[in-house]
This record gives sequence, C-alpha cells and structure tokens, in this order.
Amino acid sequence: MTHAQQIHLVRRPQGMPVAADFAQVEASVPELAADEVEVEALLVSVDPYMRPRFNADQALAAVMPGGGIGRIARSRADALPEGTLVKHGGGFQSRFVAPARTVARLDADPALPLSAYMHVLGGTGLTAWGGLLHTGALQEGERVLVSTAGGAVGSVAAQIALIKGCTVAGLTGSDEKAAWLRDIAGIQAINYRTGKLSDAIAAALPEGIDVYFENVGGNQLDAALPLMRLNGRIPVCGMISGYNGDGPGVHNLFNMIYKRLRMEGFVSTDFQSAQAAFQSEMSGWIKAGKMHWQETIVEGFERIPEAMIALLNGENAGKMLVRVAV
Amino acid sequence: MTHAQQIHLVRRPQGMPVAADFAQVEASVPELAADEVEVEALLVSVDPYMRPRFNADQALAAVMPGGGIGRIARSRADALPEGTLVKHGGGFQSRFVAPARTVARLDADPALPLSAYMHVLGGTGLTAWGGLLHTGALQEGERVLVSTAGGAVGSVAAQIALIKGCTVAGLTGSDEKAAWLRDIAGIQAINYRTGKLSDAIAAALPEGIDVYFENVGGNQLDAALPLMRLNGRIPVCGMISGYNGDGPGVHNLFNMIYKRLRMEGFVSTDFQSAQAAFQSEMSGWIKAGKMHWQETIVEGFERIPEAMIALLNGENAGKMLVRVAV
Repeated sequence: MTHAQQIHLVRRPQGMPVAADFAQVEASVPELAADEVEVEALLVSVDPYMRPRFNADQALAAVMPGGGIGRIARSRADALPEGTLVKHGGGFQSRFVAPARTVARLDADPALPLSAYMHVLGGTGLTAWGGLLHTGALQEGERVLVSTAGGAVGSVAAQIALIKGCTVAGLTGSDEKAAWLRDIAGIQAINYRTGKLSDAIAAALPEGIDVYFENVGGNQLDAALPLMRLNGRIPVCGMISGYNGDGPGVHNLFNMIYKRLRMEGFVSTDFQSAQAAFQSEMSGWIKAGKMHWQETIVEGFERIPEAMIALLNGENAGKMLVRVAV
Repeated sequence: MTHAQQIHLVRRPQGMPVAADFAQVEASVPELAADEVEVEALLVSVDPYMRPRFNADQALAAVMPGGGIGRIARSRADALPEGTLVKHGGGFQSRFVAPARTVARLDADPALPLSAYMHVLGGTGLTAWGGLLHTGALQEGERVLVSTAGGAVGSVAAQIALIKGCTVAGLTGSDEKAAWLRDIAGIQAINYRTGKLSDAIAAALPEGIDVYFENVGGNQLDAALPLMRLNGRIPVCGMISGYNGDGPGVHNLFNMIYKRLRMEGFVSTDFQSAQAAFQSEMSGWIKAGKMHWQETIVEGFERIPEAMIALLNGENAGKMLVRVAV
C-alpha cells in the first residue's frame, strides 16, 4: 500500500500561527473504487483566506483542504488517465484518492510555467480579466484606476488595462509594491499611505476615471468617486476596508447620480463560461512578454507550515506556493 | 401694449423667506419678432430647488425663472399657433414673449387634469418610470423597496411597481405620509423614524429586495443592502442624506460583491427619447384609476410668494402649484 504525507492543524493558533500548531502525519492511500483517481500533488497553494478557518471550522488532526495542481498517479476513471494534470481542492497532502468528478483536467500549455495556472492563468487572472472586461465593460483607450494594484488580482487587472491601450494608475500600500508596478509592470503607481490620495489620482489621471477596479472601498472609493467620468463603471471585486462594517464609511456615492455611474459586484465563477477565451487571451499575453507577476515558491512538502506562516507575516512577493514534486 | 405681472426677489432672505423679500411688478409685453410667441401663464410651479438660488445666482429685481404650463396668446411661429398649450421655463410672470424654440408644445389629454403634466405626467413621473423600468430593469412580480415613497418621485415609483405586480414597500418619514401610502396608494409603508429599519423592511419584504429605488443613501441604503437578493438592482435617483458629504457614511457596500448587485445613477433627461411611451403608459394608468397623487394648488398669481413660503415650511401635500388662469 502507498503512503502519503499530510499536514494537520493540531491546535488552534493563539494569534500568529507557529510551527507547533501543525504536524506532519503519514497516512495510507486506499485502493481505488470505480470512478476514483489517485492524485500526486505537484504544487500546493497557501492562501490568506485559510487563516480564519484555523480558529473556526478546520477540524484538528484532519486533512486541511486547499487548492493545488497534481498529476493522476493511478486511475479508474476513463476521462482522467494516468499522467493527466489536474486542478484540485485536496489541500495539504502529498497524494490522495478522490472521485474523478471532484478534480478538473488542466490542459496546461507546456510553453508556460505550471505555477502560472495557480494565479495569473488561474482564478486570480480570471477574476481580473472578467471583472475588468465584462463587468467593467472596459473600452480601449479609457482611463483606469485599480486598487490593490500590487496584489494578485489587481496587478493583473492593471496590466490588462495597459495592454488594452488604456491610461492606468494603480493604488498600493508600500513603496516596494509601487516600485514593482512602475519598473516591472509599467503602471503609474500611487502609494495611498503618502500624500493626499485624490490629488495623486487626479495627477496620474488628469482626464478622470472611466473604470475604477474596486478592491478596497472606504476612503479609496471616496477618493475615486468625484473623479469618475460620465458613464463611468466601478466593477466591485472586493471591499477589504469594509468587511467588518466599521471604518469611516463611504460618503461620496451621490456622485453616481449626475455622472450616471454604474457600480456592480462580481465573483470569478461568473466568468466560468468564458474560461477558454480567458486562457487563450492570457496565454498570448504571457508569451508576448506583456504580463508580469510575482510568485514565491517554497520547495518541499514538509515546508507547508513554514510557507503558511511566512505568508501570514507578509514575507511573500506575489502568489505563495509550495512545490511538492515536479 | 399688453401688460404682465411679475414676481421679483427684491432682497436676499435671512433664513426662511418672508413676503417682503418679494415684490409684484407690472411690466409691458413687447411686440413679437419673427419666430417669437407670447405665452399666457396657466400654472406656475414653485419648487424646493429654487431656495438656494435666492441667496446665490438669482438677480434682484428681475424675473425669477421656473417651470410652468401656459397657452400661446399671440404667435409669429407657424409651429405654435394661438391657443397651443406649452411647457416653459418662464417662471414667475403672468405673460411673456419668448423665442418659439424655448417652449415645448404640450399635447395634453383633455380627459386628464392639466396640473398632472406638472408632476405625475411630467418630469417627476418620467424620473420614476425611467429609473424603475429602464435603469432598475424591473421585472413583473419582483420585490421592490422605494425610499422617499411619500414624495413626488417615490410615490409614483412605488405605484408603478405595484401596477407591475410587484410586492412593494415604501420608506417615508411621517405617519401622515405612511397613512396616505397605505390607504390611498395601497403601498406597505414604513416610517423610518420609528423602530429598527432593517427589521421593518424584512417584515414587509420577507423574501428580500430585487430593486431598491434609492433617493436617500446613508442608513437607509445600509439597511437595504444586506436584504438585497442575488442580481438585485439599485437605481440611484437621489441621495439626499449625502449631498453635504457628512453623516455616518455607507458601510454595507461589500454586500454588492457576492450578491452581484448593480447600483446605477440616472437623471430624468436620460429617458427623453422614451417620452411618448411614458406619456401613453402613464395616461392609461391614470384613466384606469391606478395612479394616485397629491397636489396643492394655490389660486392667483399674486399668491406666488405665499405659496413659495408655504412650500418651504412644508405646508403642501404633494406637488405645489399656483394657478394663474384657466
């Protein structure tokens, strides 16, 4: 019988998680039933959204679910023969058995790095692409402001706008992220922690804003609203400043009336039917050298807890992944 | 030579306007040049929006512009023969000469009261109709919340929703307005000054809100947002709570994301091209006894200052008009 490694949460973290909150456990991999596959993990994703679960619905001494890319090691499902690459939600385990319908075939382009399918060619890329082009109805040559422009979704949104011939400015919270945006991605960057935000936006986009890609809310939304142009659009991807219902609130919504602004929420699954179009367009941009990203890849399954803790301490640049096998 | 009466502002009001801030003045009516018409005033509108101008751009000892319905008394324009009814911006004067292109022919249905063309069949009706059906994309049988439902626009919006087979609740600020909504217009009314607003809305619309017709913003918007249904729409007609940028702000916008809400501003002129469709549909509803309204008509040109002051003191019920002639 084959064996697998798993990372379990063994106690609830007090504040920032530490290594002793986790344990590596060996488990046996069961035989396959009909329509089941055995997946060997290649890349494991660690994400900020996991943290609240450590003190909530994540069971102790149990597998921790999460996104990843794997390869079919054994199969009793015709659609997924041995060797097929898949995206899955198997989480922190080096190999596992699952019903074939719970994993998704990944038709990865061998000319592109596999890790890109965990961010710019994955859910974060689809979110940026769909939110900007579909919900935001971006037109070529418009004026675009992106919040959290140094983040996984925002940095892709800003670069798509640039590729579409738009004038783009990005809001970010550190000089390092601003430097990456400016020097690597070619985006006008505004550190929202320094200076008067509305003045900085007006200087970067003197003709105003046609599309504001919204990830923050609060005072960033308030700064953008008076600068919006007639018939401007605000696709709402996130509102991290408002999730707790506190903060100063939004005061400038009345600008929506005379400017006929449209603000609209979306999530990435709204664009699943356009997945093929997205993959095709994004792959082209990557191959043409027009799309840049940051990723931090930690090598070795046993370093998942270390990677998780580093992520929560902000030590990553871009998407954080653990490579288990190649 | 014919003579006309005019009401002038003769001094800037200190706080609430008083009769001595206005004066009635007799003026001669000039001869007509080519393409000019002489308009005899029938109904003169007094509106809250006029007040700020008394201490700003309204000239002293000059005609005060404003909306009205008149009749062509003399004409040197073929398109507007003597006797034609017109809508105009001539304001507080009993008769006046104007270029024909500055007044608009009014094809009034003789079966309907002429005064209705100043509100339910005029700009306020068009605002409610376009905002709800076009911007709000209302579907039959949906669940609808209307703010300022006792007002000129809101009361029409709420009744249109009712006519379209929707479940409707209206927010209003007095028990008197709530009683009118309930007893005359047949709308579930919520006095937002009493009780917990979100509980009252949830009780009136237990399945949630598909369309929130927005005129207020602030805590009424905050109460509505968590109760919105998937793919809900918020047409924004006004945000009276937010015009000064003060108040507590809006904290619940993050609900827009997972519910894929769409919030969109509009003004009545956006629907000018649908004016004929609006007139036809609204006239039908009025004749069928399905549309109710309130209006306060003061008789006599000389009482315009009195009507203006009464309006600013809230002594009107519904649209305030002065009848000059019949």
